[in-house]
Amino acid sequence: MPQLVGNALIGQSGGPTCVINQSLVGIVETALEGSAIRNVYGAIHGIAGVLDERLIDLGRESKEVLEAIAVTPCAALRSVRKKPTREECAKALRVFKAHDIRYFFYIGGNDTAETAFLLNELAVAEGYEMRLFHVPKTIDNDLRVTDHCPGYGSAARFVASAFLGDNQDNRSLPGIKVDVVMGRNAGWLTAASALARTHPGDGPHLIYLPERVFSADAFVADVDRVYKEHGRCLIAVSEGIHGADGKSVIETKEVDSHGNAQLSGSGALGDWLAGEIKQKLGGKLRVRADTFGYLQRSFAGVWSDVDAAEAREVGRTAVRVALKGDRPHGSIVILRDPGARYRARYDVTELKNVAKETRPMEQHFLRGDNDVSPEFLEYVRPLVGQLPVSARLSDLPVARKL
Amino acid sequence: MPQLVGNALIGQSGGPTCVINQSLVGIVETALEGSAIRNVYGAIHGIAGVLDERLIDLGRESKEVLEAIAVTPCAALRSVRKKPTREECAKALRVFKAHDIRYFFYIGGNDTAETAFLLNELAVAEGYEMRLFHVPKTIDNDLRVTDHCPGYGSAARFVASAFLGDNQDNRSLPGIKVDVVMGRNAGWLTAASALARTHPGDGPHLIYLPERVFSADAFVADVDRVYKEHGRCLIAVSEGIHGADGKSVIETKEVDSHGNAQLSGSGALGDWLAGEIKQKLGGKLRVRADTFGYLQRSFAGVWSDVDAAEAREVGRTAVRVALKGDRPHGSIVILRDPGARYRARYDVTELKNVAKETRPMEQHFLRGDNDVSPEFLEYVRPLVGQLPVSARLSDLPVARKL
Repeated sequence: MPQLVGNALIGQSGGPTCVINQSLVGIVETALEGSAIRNVYGAIHGIAGVLDERLIDLGRESKEVLEAIAVTPCAALRSVRKKPTREECAKALRVFKAHDIRYFFYIGGNDTAETAFLLNELAVAEGYEMRLFHVPKTIDNDLRVTDHCPGYGSAARFVASAFLGDNQDNRSLPGIKVDVVMGRNAGWLTAASALARTHPGDGPHLIYLPERVFSADAFVADVDRVYKEHGRCLIAVSEGIHGADGKSVIETKEVDSHGNAQLSGSGALGDWLAGEIKQKLGGKLRVRADTFGYLQRSFAGVWSDVDAAEAREVGRTAVRVALKGDRPHGSIVILRDPGARYRARYDVTELKNVAKETRPMEQHFLRGDNDVSPEFLEYVRPLVGQLPVSARLSDLPVARKL
Repeated sequence: MPQLVGNALIGQSGGPTCVINQSLVGIVETALEGSAIRNVYGAIHGIAGVLDERLIDLGRESKEVLEAIAVTPCAALRSVRKKPTREECAKALRVFKAHDIRYFFYIGGNDTAETAFLLNELAVAEGYEMRLFHVPKTIDNDLRVTDHCPGYGSAARFVASAFLGDNQDNRSLPGIKVDVVMGRNAGWLTAASALARTHPGDGPHLIYLPERVFSADAFVADVDRVYKEHGRCLIAVSEGIHGADGKSVIETKEVDSHGNAQLSGSGALGDWLAGEIKQKLGGKLRVRADTFGYLQRSFAGVWSDVDAAEAREVGRTAVRVALKGDRPHGSIVILRDPGARYRARYDVTELKNVAKETRPMEQHFLRGDNDVSPEFLEYVRPLVGQLPVSARLSDLPVARKL
C-alpha cells in the first residue's frame, strides 16, 4: 500500500482523565517517527478548534515538555462537548483539506467516536483520502468492544484509595457515610470501591449501581441492617442510580434548593440520601455524605501505572494502524489475554461499534442488589495496581482491673 | 530526678489525619526504648475507651505492624469527640491508678488538649504522680503556639493537588467552579489551594477565608469579573465563611432540602454558592461545585513526607520530654528556625496555652478580600513538599489557511 503523505491532527474531547495526555503524547511521538506524517498539529478544544481553525504545532514541542504533559491531568489540548452538525462536518473537512490533514486522531469517549464516525462518512462521500481514528478514554469505562478504557484504572485507583481512607475514617469515628461516585450510565467506577475492603467488616458495606433498580425504602432498610450489625455503615452510590421508571433518582427528587438536577458538580444526591436515612432511622444518627466530584477525573499525582502505560500505548497503536493503511478508520481497543497473569493486547474495531452506545456492567460482575462479585474484583485489580497500605492493630486486650 | 516507673497509655481524639498514626508509632517505639515505661497501652476511642477500660497492649505489636500502621490514614486506636465531665475525669483517674498508668499521651487538637488539661488538674489535686502530654494533630492547622500542626502539611498537599487537577479540568472545559475546603475556624487549609497556581492565569482565581467577612453580593461580583477576564473561574471557599454577624453562611441560609446545617459531610454550601452565581449571573452559565469532604483528612496514599516525619517526631519528643520529667505535663510544639532553608525544632508549651482557643491566619498571610500573600506561600510550601507536575503546551500557532 502506498504511503499517505500529509499532516496529522489530534483533538481531545469529553470529560478529562488523569492519563488522557499519555495518549496525546503517544500519538505525537509515534507520528514524528516516520516520514509519511510531515507535521503534527493539535486542535484547541477538539472539534470546536477545528471549526475555528485554532491549530497548534505539536511537532515543535520539546521532548521534556511532552513528558511533563504526559503526567499532567486533563486535556492539554483543552476539551469540548460538541456533536458537529452536517454543516459543521463539511466545514471541518474544508479545514482538513486546507491544512492537508490526512490523519485525524480524536481522543475521547463514545460521543467522540460518533464525531469521528460522522467526519469519516463525509470524507469517504467526498472522496478525500484520510485516516480517522478514535483513541478511547473515559473514567466511566463504558465503551463497547474494549475490555476496559484508558482513564478508568486511574480513576478507579482514586476511588479505591478514597474508600480505603474513608473506611478507616468511618471506623475511627463511627457513623453512616454515603459516598457518591461518578458514572452516569454504568457502575464500573462505583464498583471499584469494593477494592478498599482489606479486613473483615471493612466497607464499603453497600454498593448501589445503575445496573440495578434503586428503591429508597430498600436502601434505608439495608443501611439499618448494616448499622445494627457493624455499628457503622459506609455506602458507595453511583450518581446514575435510577428508579423502576428508568429516571435517575436525582432527576425525580426535589433535591436542591435551586431546583438543579445536574448529576455531577453538585452534592444534591448525597445530601438527599443522607436526609432520607436521618428522616427514617432517626435524626440523632451521625450521617454524612461526600460527593467525590471532579477529583475522580482530575486529581494530580495519583494514577495507575498500568493505566498510564496503556493510555500511552493506545495512542501509539492508533498511529501505527493509521500509517499501515489497511484500515483507514477505526477505534483502538484493548483486549485481555486469558490467564492468571494480566496481559493486554491492542486491536482495532469499526468506529460504529463504539459510537453512541455505552456498556453497562455485565451481570456476572454484580452480586445481589448492592454488591459486586469476586469476578469483578479479579477484572479490576490489575487495572488499578497495588493499593496503599491499610493496616489494623491486633487489639490485644489488657485485662480489666475495675 | 528519679525515674517515674509505670505504664504508658496513648489515646487518639478528634477528626483523623493521614499522619496521626505516625505520632502513635513515634510514641510507642520511643516508650519501648527505656526501662521506666513497663507497658505501652492504647485506649480504644480515646477518653471513651479509658472510661470503659477498653485498653489494648501496643507493646506486643510487631515492628512490621507498627510500620504499616504508621502509613495508614486515620486513628488506628479509633477516635472520639468527647469532653469529659468532672465525674468522668475522676473515673479516668481511677482507671489510670488501677493500671498504674504514669504516662498519658493524648493525640489530637485543641479540644483534646483541654481534656489533657482537665485530667492533669485532677491528678495534681489528688497527688497522683503522672506525666500528661498532648501530642498535636489537626488538618485545620489552628492550634496556638506551634508554627504549624502535624496533619496540616498532608491535607494541604491533598488540597493543592486537587486544585492543580481542577485548574486543568476548568481550563479543559471552561466554566465556573466552586470548591469547598474544610476548616471551620481558620482558613489555613483553604489557603493552601494557592499552591496550585503554576502558570499565568491559573486558578484558584478567588480564595474565600473565614478570616474575612463574606458577602454573597461581593462574591458574585468577584466571580463575574474573573469570568469576564479569563473565560473561566476557579474558586476556593472555606466551609467556615461567615457574614458580618459572625454566623457561618451555612447556618444562616436555607441550603438543604432537609434543613441540615452541618458544615462537613454535606454539599450544601457549595451547591448554595453555585445557585447564587447562576441566579445572579445567568442560568446558562456552566457552574459546578465540589465539596472535598473527608477525603482531605483520610485519603490513602497521599501525604507530605515532611509532615509524616514531623508527626513521628512530635510523638517521639513527647515521650522523651515525659521521661526527662522536668516538665510533668505539656503540649509539644514545632518551631521553625529562621532562614531560607526550612528546619523544624521541637519544644513544649503549657497545656493551657493550647487548650480550647484556636488560631486564625495572621493578617500578613492574607491579601485583599480573596487572596493570600506571598509570605503565606513561603510559609506553607516546605510543609507540603514538591507538588505533582502541572504542565502546559507552548501553543505554537499554525497559520490559518481559510
